[in-house]
Amino acid sequence: MARQYAIGVDLGGTTVRIALVNHEGHVRHAESYRSQATRGPEPLMDDMAAWILEVIDAGRATRDDVVGVGIGSPGPLSPSRGIVFKAANLPGWVNVPLCRAMRERTGLPTVMDNDGNLAAFGEYWAGAGKGVENIVMLTLGTGIGAGVVVNGELLHGHFENAGELGHTIVVPDGRRCSCGQRGCLEQYASAANVGKRVAEAIRNGEPSRLAGLVEEGVTFGSRKVVEAAGEGDVLAARIWDEACYYLAIACVNIQHAYNPSRIVMAGGMSKAGAFLVEAVRRHFKLLTWDLHDDSPDIRIAVLGDDAGVIGAAGWAWKAEDEGRWDQPPGF
Amino acid sequence: MARQYAIGVDLGGTTVRIALVNHEGHVRHAESYRSQATRGPEPLMDDMAAWILEVIDAGRATRDDVVGVGIGSPGPLSPSRGIVFKAANLPGWVNVPLCRAMRERTGLPTVMDNDGNLAAFGEYWAGAGKGVENIVMLTLGTGIGAGVVVNGELLHGHFENAGELGHTIVVPDGRRCSCGQRGCLEQYASAANVGKRVAEAIRNGEPSRLAGLVEEGVTFGSRKVVEAAGEGDVLAARIWDEACYYLAIACVNIQHAYNPSRIVMAGGMSKAGAFLVEAVRRHFKLLTWDLHDDSPDIRIAVLGDDAGVIGAAGWAWKAEDEGRWDQPPGF
Repeated sequence: MARQYAIGVDLGGTTVRIALVNHEGHVRHAESYRSQATRGPEPLMDDMAAWILEVIDAGRATRDDVVGVGIGSPGPLSPSRGIVFKAANLPGWVNVPLCRAMRERTGLPTVMDNDGNLAAFGEYWAGAGKGVENIVMLTLGTGIGAGVVVNGELLHGHFENAGELGHTIVVPDGRRCSCGQRGCLEQYASAANVGKRVAEAIRNGEPSRLAGLVEEGVTFGSRKVVEAAGEGDVLAARIWDEACYYLAIACVNIQHAYNPSRIVMAGGMSKAGAFLVEAVRRHFKLLTWDLHDDSPDIRIAVLGDDAGVIGAAGWAWKAEDEGRWDQPPGF
Repeated sequence: MARQYAIGVDLGGTTVRIALVNHEGHVRHAESYRSQATRGPEPLMDDMAAWILEVIDAGRATRDDVVGVGIGSPGPLSPSRGIVFKAANLPGWVNVPLCRAMRERTGLPTVMDNDGNLAAFGEYWAGAGKGVENIVMLTLGTGIGAGVVVNGELLHGHFENAGELGHTIVVPDGRRCSCGQRGCLEQYASAANVGKRVAEAIRNGEPSRLAGLVEEGVTFGSRKVVEAAGEGDVLAARIWDEACYYLAIACVNIQHAYNPSRIVMAGGMSKAGAFLVEAVRRHFKLLTWDLHDDSPDIRIAVLGDDAGVIGAAGWAWKAEDEGRWDQPPGF
């Protein structure tokens, strides 16, 4: 009988999520584990190999039922060489040969890619991008991650770092970003930065029902801002609308850069649902050109926190289906 | 004996350039003809077919030596369907089945693509992009055209209109563009708009040695601005430097969007050579991130006005080499 499952791993600084996923993108079993990342790469990779076997077992399968493993990791990294160069939230991860190390530990063929790329690939394969071949996904979290699918393949580029759309410049000489640039998209429209901008305005004397939190020194993100805006808070509503305006500018630039049929929004900020997507669509309509009708459909992701593991497993399935475990898919 | 040539056609509102090009990208013979575009598509396509035979003949070849024809056309258009939807400088061109019509007239297999795409493909194949697989070309003329080569293929996207980088927004709520948007790159950094911005500043009372031209009602582009800047004109130098700054922002965004190894500048403004590319590189270095060393090499195109015909012929060669005349290359 043909092997029925692939393993998807979403490696993060706080949590490692692992799922057993079938060829249609359905999760048979999934678990989340504490990374305890401060201990460095070797013990964590030992644990990951054990956790993979645990998840296979919990899904009532055996290693022989599994075609291989796909891993989404923070980067920068090289999918083609299977190496993590470094990762902000994984201390001590410097030039780690993740694919080889995991292959040795599990005996299973392994591919890897950027976590933002594989979340996008998950939505493309089994979520909000199903049925279309060209999508771009923006993950609106602490920063803004992104993944670009062109004709069913992940876009990598020469340095294998394409689709870093959170760091495209939307405001010349704008807000300073931790990446060293100024005016990056993620400084205006990530879940964390929306909260940060409201807090800054409050500290500059603007009235808001979130002033109490700022006084208490509480850090908040987009959820609190959306709540306050919904209750009529003028400052929160303004900053939220500005974030949607900058996301719409990003969507216009994505339209002209990649010409996808769909743009999908994921991450913490996307939990605002219609409150997010309708505002982005409204700004987009006012901002985009009238030369040619090539507007993408803008919508909310559907896989939630499982996009990463589903996409990682889908990437493994793709390597299996195309017979290129040694030369991972994508371009 | 194997056939030695492909025909490249660069179709424009003023001029049609046609070249006989060998498999190495060398031009055996080329001619330019007046389009007389006001007469509409049918007579022009009749002429183009006759001109193609003329160029073959002048190159001391016969139709049997030619594998096929590649045509670069203004758009929007569909390369896969071989149709020009419309073209600003070609009156009466509405939904013209250019590939089929030319195939019927010449008896030669024919592919087509956006003119900016094929100029980029020309530089990739036989010019400033030779030897690398991921390049982006910006053509700085009246507007800003662009073409994106990913792993040796032209990027098209779902609506076949990817790489319209002249219309990415670099200044939120900025200068109005003829496309209906505001703040498009081409409003700040095309050859024509650099001249226009100097003229506007002069009309607003700023001193410049180009004031005489403005008084006489003469329209000028980047060449005059570069000359004046070279002679110490403060206004011209400032507008030129601003244009290079916005081009550098575009290069940062190209870096993060496509991650190419090379960005090539072509078109009228690129005739400034080092005066352009060194200023863009200087701004780029100050603007780009320090997270990861994935900066593209920024340089000037080398094929000049023949990039279009060479790229069109190269596109025909690619269709021949890959045996897909009926299903043109690219994605």
